[in-house]
Order: sequence, then structure tokens, then C-alpha cells
Amino acid sequence: MNTKIENNSCQNGRINSFTQVNQMQQRGDKRGFGGDEVRVVDSMIDIIYPPVPFPSNRIFNTIGEMKIREMVEHHHTLLLKTKVGKLFPANEEALKMVIDKSADFFVEALGGGDIFTSVHGEPHLRMRHFKVPIDEQDREIWLAMYKKTLKMINFPKAHLEEFWNWIEPLSIRMINRRTNMEAIKRHHWQEVKHEFMTREGN
Amino acid sequence: MNTKIENNSCQNGRINSFTQVNQMQQRGDKRGFGGDEVRVVDSMIDIIYPPVPFPSNRIFNTIGEMKIREMVEHHHTLLLKTKVGKLFPANEEALKMVIDKSADFFVEALGGGDIFTSVHGEPHLRMRHFKVPIDEQDREIWLAMYKKTLKMINFPKAHLEEFWNWIEPLSIRMINRRTNMEAIKRHHWQEVKHEFMTREGN
Repeated sequence: MNTKIENNSCQNGRINSFTQVNQMQQRGDKRGFGGDEVRVVDSMIDIIYPPVPFPSNRIFNTIGEMKIREMVEHHHTLLLKTKVGKLFPANEEALKMVIDKSADFFVEALGGGDIFTSVHGEPHLRMRHFKVPIDEQDREIWLAMYKKTLKMINFPKAHLEEFWNWIEPLSIRMINRRTNMEAIKRHHWQEVKHEFMTREGN
Repeated sequence: MNTKIENNSCQNGRINSFTQVNQMQQRGDKRGFGGDEVRVVDSMIDIIYPPVPFPSNRIFNTIGEMKIREMVEHHHTLLLKTKVGKLFPANEEALKMVIDKSADFFVEALGGGDIFTSVHGEPHLRMRHFKVPIDEQDREIWLAMYKKTLKMINFPKAHLEEFWNWIEPLSIRMINRRTNMEAIKRHHWQEVKHEFMTREGN
């Protein structure tokens, strides 16, 4: 089965997005409301969720399951101290289950076998996150806390780029509450890698 | 200035959307996680906001400002009895200001002059609604209450189609909280018009 389905809104190879329109200057010749004829405003999309390069098994083969679990737990410990923390269960046992499940996902995604999907089915991360509202700022915090985590657990530098290139666009797919017209801020590896390098030996 | 900006995600005239992927059957040959090489998952969009045909001045010229204000007030009275009501100010004076502002917008949009934009600037409806979370169900309620309103105020039948064709896609643009992968439900005039017709004389 072909996963590429024709999308009629892409006629002529172009589509308008709210973020693009937001970045445009107001047009001087704009037509107003309530003229003599119906005035059709074009169809629109919101953000484009960028491609997600899922990592190879190199990370799992290098750091192993326990280190991945340590990473996910550390990340959650940091998250709980931020405003994103309110999205997690207050009950300690329920929280532990959420973190364990997340760790299972990371272990599997990095090459440690089907410990998540065999129990929970397909990850469908976007779908699983619908029950909590996640806005652009929540995603910024999630990613910033990962950056901190990767430094603190001394994630192997040779694999940082592959890991970052995955979680950075992946985190955008969890956004389900838009609060502005801005394009989603990217944090490309080229722009963030120096932060990992300068901390060496600290 | 040209409002049509090239969108690189429309390469080859196609783009994937979450709703389309959701409608697809699972592929049997799907590649799993953590293989020997990085596996790139395509870029994605969420919903496509359909074109919005803004009405001509025919409605204003027929029913006039007071009837439009009555309509907007009636709609809000109904909304306040639904779960959407919690999105409005509890304070009576603040609520009245919100309803008056909305009425100003409808009067202007239907051809009654720039009574909204001269005070508040460009409508930017999507932007103005960002401060409150509006999900798919809220939009269903908003639209259903308009349907009820149009019947109750005896909106002139000759102009119903033009009005409905405007508010139905317009309401989709206010959605800023996604809670599922489904395509947004359309309520095309052809499907709803019988509801207005059968009530005649009731």
C-alpha cells in the first residue's frame, strides 16, 4: 500500500499556511468585508510537522537499556519541576507507571526490542498525548530538559547528533494546542551542538 | 505582493496529513524501530482549513444591523447554556462587551461598514481566539447553536445558504486544540438545508 496520498489542497504545488501569512506584510490592496460579491479566502494549513529521523540501533548498542532508563527518569525528574509537570499524574504509583512506559518506548525506539509495542501496541505518540493539552511552550520545556539531561548523564558524544535529530522534530508532533501564529521554533543540531561541547569536563 | 508562497512540503504535489494516515489501514510491511540505519518518517500536516466564502452585502441589505445584533445575542444566549459557555467571561459587563464586539464583527462582515475594524483593527479571528482553548467539539456546539439561532430568528431563507457557507468553514479556523486524529466534520449546506426547510411554519 502506498502511504503517499494525493492531497487536493496542494494544487499547483503550493499551499498557504497561517504561519506564512503571519509573516507577510499586510497587503495594501486588501479587499474588505461585505462587498457586492462573495469573497473566497483560500484554504489554509497550520504548522508542517517536519520529518522525523528515527535512530538506528547504534545508541542502544552503545549505552544499553539501563542507561536509557536512567535518561528517561532523569528527564522526568527535571520536567516535574517545570510547568509541564502539571500534565503528569500526582499519584506516585501512576507517575511511576507513566515513566516506566515512556522508558519502555525509548528502549524499543533505540533498538532494544519490542518491549513497548508488545504490551501497548503501536506508539502513536501524537494520539497518546491528545488527552493532555501540549502547547508550543510545553514542547520547548520538554526539549530543554532533554538537553540538560543529555549533559548530566554524559550521553556519548558520538551519538548525540543522531539522538537529537530524532527528539527535536519528534517533540513537535506532540503539540496539540496552538497559542499563536508563529512557526514552531526549530533547534537544529548545528545550532545546539556547541552547548554540549563547551560543557565537557564540567 | 503575492499571497501564494511556495511550500516545500508540497513537493510532487502531495503531502501527508495525520487524518489521512489515521484513515489508512496499518501496513503489513512496516519497518520497526532501531534498525541498522536511521529511518526517516515523512513530514506531516494536521487538518486543512477549508476556503471561507465571505458573504456579500446582500444579507446586511436585507435584514439590517438590528437583526444581525439580535442574531449574535441569541447565539450567545444559547452558547452560554452549553459547555462552550465556560469560555466566556463570568462577569456580566465583560460578557456584554464580548457579545457587542462579536456583533460589531458580524455587522461589518455582512456589509454594514467598518464598525469593528475602525476600533479593533483587523479581525484575525483565529489569532483572537488563541487565548481560549477551542477543540473540535466546541466548534460543533458553536455551529449547532447557530443553526438553532437561524431558525429561531427566522433568518431569511433566500440568504441562508450564503450565510451558512461562510460560518461553517469559518468556525473551523477557530479550532486551536486538537483532541483526535479525525478529519474535521463538515456540515455542507446540501446536508443541512432540509433542517431549515422542514421547520417552516413551526
